[in-house]
Amino acid sequence: MEHKRSLLDIIDFYLVTDSGLSKKGTLSDVESAVAAGCRIVQYREKTRSTRDMVLEASQIKTLCGNEAIFLVNDRVDVALAVDADGVHIGQDDMPIHTARELLGPDKIIGLTVHNIEEALEAERSGANYVGLGPIFNTSTKEDAGEGIGPESIRAVKEALNIPVVAIGGINKQNSESVIIGGADSLVAISAVVCSDDVTRETKEFIDLIDQIRSQYK
Amino acid sequence: MEHKRSLLDIIDFYLVTDSGLSKKGTLSDVESAVAAGCRIVQYREKTRSTRDMVLEASQIKTLCGNEAIFLVNDRVDVALAVDADGVHIGQDDMPIHTARELLGPDKIIGLTVHNIEEALEAERSGANYVGLGPIFNTSTKEDAGEGIGPESIRAVKEALNIPVVAIGGINKQNSESVIIGGADSLVAISAVVCSDDVTRETKEFIDLIDQIRSQYK
Ligand code: NI
Repeated sequence: MEHKRSLLDIIDFYLVTDSGLSKKGTLSDVESAVAAGCRIVQYREKTRSTRDMVLEASQIKTLCGNEAIFLVNDRVDVALAVDADGVHIGQDDMPIHTARELLGPDKIIGLTVHNIEEALEAERSGANYVGLGPIFNTSTKEDAGEGIGPESIRAVKEALNIPVVAIGGINKQNSESVIIGGADSLVAISAVVCSDDVTRETKEFIDLIDQIRSQYK
Repeated sequence: MEHKRSLLDIIDFYLVTDSGLSKKGTLSDVESAVAAGCRIVQYREKTRSTRDMVLEASQIKTLCGNEAIFLVNDRVDVALAVDADGVHIGQDDMPIHTARELLGPDKIIGLTVHNIEEALEAERSGANYVGLGPIFNTSTKEDAGEGIGPESIRAVKEALNIPVVAIGGINKQNSESVIIGGADSLVAISAVVCSDDVTRETKEFIDLIDQIRSQYK
């Protein structure tokens, strides 16, 4: 876990799986993204049976190996069953203090937050990173609310000591504003998993993030 | 847990919650059934958020108190979060050996089985009881398959040392055949939770089971 925790400091492109949107399937997407250098994968699955999720999660864990942090969205039971590196939880999921008790001090817990107040509370509660969003208006998550804008990232980033992952409506065209805004990492679901070539798309995001950072350093 | 485990020997009417079918709501149904003498409650919820399930499960746990065993259907994370007495798992849920590892040796695990082979395998795997069914054809669970008939219960009961709970299409009219067939306990979801008076319905089932047993002893 030491090694996985240290990967948190170098995450850039963050893969969230989506079996509904994926063109080639979740396992293929994970394999392709990790091959492209993605260092963090979140398995997000809302429709399959627990048995299928446990099986798929164990396959994703193998694909991530030592290369990428492997988190399970929401389902602490699935994370525990396959000994994942941790979980990502939203405000409708298990309370973070309960998740921490069940997972222990070493696992990674990421929390979705929508503003600086929730972000500060997340860090106080022991979150290892926050997923901040939605940055832009998005059609994939109906209940996500209005985009907060990339200019909102800076204040959150400066207030926290843990990484800030930007999420919501992000694509290659608007990534620059997100990175300039101060995000440590970004999620771009449909831009990647809807593609025929997830490895290429992931590489392009990683290169883009690199370029922007070296340009604005 | 000792006390709760010992309750397994005296279960008769077994409540499974169903927020979709319930007339008065899950919490009201549990309170009414426990007041009527029900000794085992399974919280089965497939649609609410994890956060809502954890909250509701903790309320159900309080309502069950020392009077009734409190199990969570499928969700080992919810069971762990509220320290329930155990879980009930189906063939599509987490594998029983994984659930046992996460819950520890003292928690109660019930397993859904459809025939004597699965029942024997369940006992070998450390299940504390089996839910055998569907006994009758049922419209509430589309994927449940053909009813196995109450005359199938006897062979399972004689092959196992753990309690056999009959489930699927059971109502007051056909309960006699189920109890004569050898079931230790029975589930009758719609017959109870669709009622205006869950306490009365539960009492009637408990009395009916008592009568049949004393008649055929
Ligand atoms: Ni390591």
